[in-house]
Amino acid sequence: MRVFVVHYSEIALKGKNRSLFEKKLIENIKRKIDAKIRRESGRIIIEDDNAEISESLKKIPGIKYFALAEVADLDIEEIKEKALSLVSGGTFKIETKRSNKKFPLTSIDINRIVGEYILNKKNIKVNLKNPETTVFIEICDKQCYLYTEKIYGVGGLPCGVSGKVITLLSGKKSALASFLMMKRGAEVVAVNFSKTNDVVSYAKKLSEHHKIKLYIIPKIVSREEMIRIANEIAKKENAKGIVVGDVIPESGDIESLSKLYSLSELPVFTPVICFDKIEYPVEIFEREPVSQTKIIEFNN
Amino acid sequence: MRVFVVHYSEIALKGKNRSLFEKKLIENIKRKIDAKIRRESGRIIIEDDNAEISESLKKIPGIKYFALAEVADLDIEEIKEKALSLVSGGTFKIETKRSNKKFPLTSIDINRIVGEYILNKKNIKVNLKNPETTVFIEICDKQCYLYTEKIYGVGGLPCGVSGKVITLLSGKKSALASFLMMKRGAEVVAVNFSKTNDVVSYAKKLSEHHKIKLYIIPKIVSREEMIRIANEIAKKENAKGIVVGDVIPESGDIESLSKLYSLSELPVFTPVICFDKIEYPVEIFEREPVSQTKIIEFNN
Repeated sequence: MRVFVVHYSEIALKGKNRSLFEKKLIENIKRKIDAKIRRESGRIIIEDDNAEISESLKKIPGIKYFALAEVADLDIEEIKEKALSLVSGGTFKIETKRSNKKFPLTSIDINRIVGEYILNKKNIKVNLKNPETTVFIEICDKQCYLYTEKIYGVGGLPCGVSGKVITLLSGKKSALASFLMMKRGAEVVAVNFSKTNDVVSYAKKLSEHHKIKLYIIPKIVSREEMIRIANEIAKKENAKGIVVGDVIPESGDIESLSKLYSLSELPVFTPVICFDKIEYPVEIFEREPVSQTKIIEFNN
Repeated sequence: MRVFVVHYSEIALKGKNRSLFEKKLIENIKRKIDAKIRRESGRIIIEDDNAEISESLKKIPGIKYFALAEVADLDIEEIKEKALSLVSGGTFKIETKRSNKKFPLTSIDINRIVGEYILNKKNIKVNLKNPETTVFIEICDKQCYLYTEKIYGVGGLPCGVSGKVITLLSGKKSALASFLMMKRGAEVVAVNFSKTNDVVSYAKKLSEHHKIKLYIIPKIVSREEMIRIANEIAKKENAKGIVVGDVIPESGDIESLSKLYSLSELPVFTPVICFDKIEYPVEIFEREPVSQTKIIEFNN
């Protein structure tokens, strides 16, 4: 059986944050994937090779890249055979990461030994600069993992490590703001004041990355009132900030936004305030496809 | 003599904003360039062909693109001759914008008439898809402008149209936050609490785009104290918001940032809070090169 080997971004891996980060990421993966999951040598190993897992992993914040890997014992003979089975034709190279420093061979040794073995067995050439196949070999504490394809995820931090926010969700810009906050590790509770299909579909999209709660206030209120209600919900949810999708000048100038935010007890975070359709990757969110959302009717 | 024809972004050109936008942009250009400047048919015309002007125009927020253009009277014979002089060899096409609807020929007419004239005079071919030279012809109210090269500026809005903010300037991220706010039309007053050479050089870079005022507080204070002092300066400067370069998680988590911003009377804008070194164009500011900064020693 093959396993999924998951690598996370190194951004928050300093000191005591590391273990919080790893624990939270495993918790978030377990929410989406029903399989045996464990840590090994700074990676997360998912003991399952169901292809659907790949689709989920692509969307979970905190995952930098992952791979569906062959497993070998910490034995160079077995590693050689497994590596050989991964190369079919064309050019290749071996790229070893030895996280387990007790393993008796260095990464350079392993590259050389495995490379020579494959060269002797197959009519194939080494190309270090631009190979058709790269065999990645990861020597971890318990086992060795081998794969040829890295699949990149959305990156960022696991949802929940940075705290909780209330986002005013109304359309594309606020959905993007919510998504960016999720990728910075925020747990997101969304509030909407109109209940259009659009909003439900954005909430669904967001929930593909991490579960979100959506409060729907079934009446039209002023922007000032929205800020007030968002603060009420924040108290209830123990959230520490309000997030808006406001953009200058479409949402107003500095003075009008400043007046509006002044009504908030909690600080208002403005992650997309300087976004410019022309220059910024607003479509970053569009790339991400959908699942189940918890919808609560909130009567104010 | 040739002139510079300046095109601005269309983002804020709806309704009453348009004239404010244009007035401010002309005012900002006049600060950097000593030449006769006027509006014509939704463009700004600078009656000077000094190459140095180009370097300044590239950096002024609100300018989408500009060109050093030949001037012709609103006379098709003169337009034909001027267009001919702009094409040397290879393939070409003509692209006409007729902003002056009183001109008797349509854009398509002009493309055809001028194109045929050049074909008869020179051994050269038309290529509509991928020409080596494109002759842009702009039929404006008073004159016609012809050029072959569009030079792109930083885009955005003219500084000053959106209001005034205080930015806490300490390094690259806060400089980027300041720059992005400038591009959204903010007048920026920067405050620094350490007076490193770095900060002065960032302030100089920013001032290439638009003049900024820099307050230097010659003592080290806590972040809480920084927020308090920034608010004091905001009152004095009649600014409507505080801008920070905080990024999650490097600058703290949501709760700690929320606590910090709660100390501010004015809302705190966070344009780079979700920026991720890997994915976002943090080097967007780095592209921009420098001038004079007004430095005020502020003794708290």
